[in-house]
Amino acid sequence: MRALVLASGGVDSTTCLALAVRRFGAAEVLALSVFYGQKHQKELAAARAVAAYFGVARRELDLTAVFAESGCTLLAGRGELPHTSYAEQQQAAPGRPVSTYVPFRNGLFLAAAASVAEAAGCEYIYYGAHRDDAAGNAYPDCSEAFYQAMREAIARGTGGGLKLEAPFIAKNKAQVVAAGLELGVPYELTWSCYEGRDKPCGVCATCRDRLRAFAANGQKDPLEYEEVEL
Amino acid sequence: MRALVLASGGVDSTTCLALAVRRFGAAEVLALSVFYGQKHQKELAAARAVAAYFGVARRELDLTAVFAESGCTLLAGRGELPHTSYAEQQQAAPGRPVSTYVPFRNGLFLAAAASVAEAAGCEYIYYGAHRDDAAGNAYPDCSEAFYQAMREAIARGTGGGLKLEAPFIAKNKAQVVAAGLELGVPYELTWSCYEGRDKPCGVCATCRDRLRAFAANGQKDPLEYEEVEL
Repeated sequence: MRALVLASGGVDSTTCLALAVRRFGAAEVLALSVFYGQKHQKELAAARAVAAYFGVARRELDLTAVFAESGCTLLAGRGELPHTSYAEQQQAAPGRPVSTYVPFRNGLFLAAAASVAEAAGCEYIYYGAHRDDAAGNAYPDCSEAFYQAMREAIARGTGGGLKLEAPFIAKNKAQVVAAGLELGVPYELTWSCYEGRDKPCGVCATCRDRLRAFAANGQKDPLEYEEVEL
Repeated sequence: MRALVLASGGVDSTTCLALAVRRFGAAEVLALSVFYGQKHQKELAAARAVAAYFGVARRELDLTAVFAESGCTLLAGRGELPHTSYAEQQQAAPGRPVSTYVPFRNGLFLAAAASVAEAAGCEYIYYGAHRDDAAGNAYPDCSEAFYQAMREAIARGTGGGLKLEAPFIAKNKAQVVAAGLELGVPYELTWSCYEGRDKPCGVCATCRDRLRAFAANGQKDPLEYEEVEL
């Protein structure tokens, strides 16, 4: 294996996976998905479908126990999810992470990815963080400063053998979708909604983000939504 | 809670715990121990005894699944542990991690610690890496460069609220023991040996290290060993 891709089943990581498959070939790519106690498992089912589509090997880890004491609203048994955009949530609490921020989640995922990737002999880890998620400190573990530090930590902590790549770190979500449309990413297989009903809700922050990213490209998101409110 | 201490039950992390308790008081310290599929659970039992001695809260995480594909000889079901010192192992394979290096283990532990510490409202994470473990790249995830990068990743990825401290990063193990003897650390409760028999073996790399560290301080290690060969 040459590359491990953190694959959540969403738009960003699936686009990342398509990039890695184009660069290294499906036989050299390992998709890693992490369950961490979300309210539903629709993302994991999407991650499975996406990996099958690309024909890559995959592993699934359950790290739920790490977040046992977190009150994050993404997690099962916590409060209700917000139905407003990230920007509106940020206006209500400037400079603070949003209520769907899971404490140091990407740090934990990337560290686990490094352990798995090193054991599998990989040279690269790919992950799909982009500029929009870091805006206003909504998700500090999506920021470029975090990425650069984590890249250094992984290189140093593994003795130099493993490189972290975040191809979209300086792009916004519309640009991620633009790249994916060019790569022919099967977005109909992906799942982004924080809710876990039959269809995506269309009004949670991540649905709003995703719908806008397709619209910015003059495209219709191939998923069918409960409601659409751009 | 103000500080989380990664507490393995060994000499270094127990000395770290003593430092944190002196600085913040036992009521403000959370000891986190991680099981990761070692050949035995003696360390965890020691970590429990140490936490009870100091009267601090503790949590235990099982991250064994992350290392399922690793061939590291510390792990259950893998090859036999080496019986030579780190220096001898390094001479045999210069610049390479030793066979007891667990892929990016400290990176994973520190990331999990950050997730737990942030959810618990801590300001600090303490961990006991020291100079000897990093020598010759034996454990790259104990190096000062790794520590600095991980400190930055944790600060950035949590939005600035969490500081990683490694009070022994520039000290050798003899200096760690010197600090611990001054603090009155109950080393009789700790466990370092890679083997999991009744008494520590005295000849694995970590037993040799530990025995030398006490000897360098003109002290006898309070544990009784199967054999002692300095």
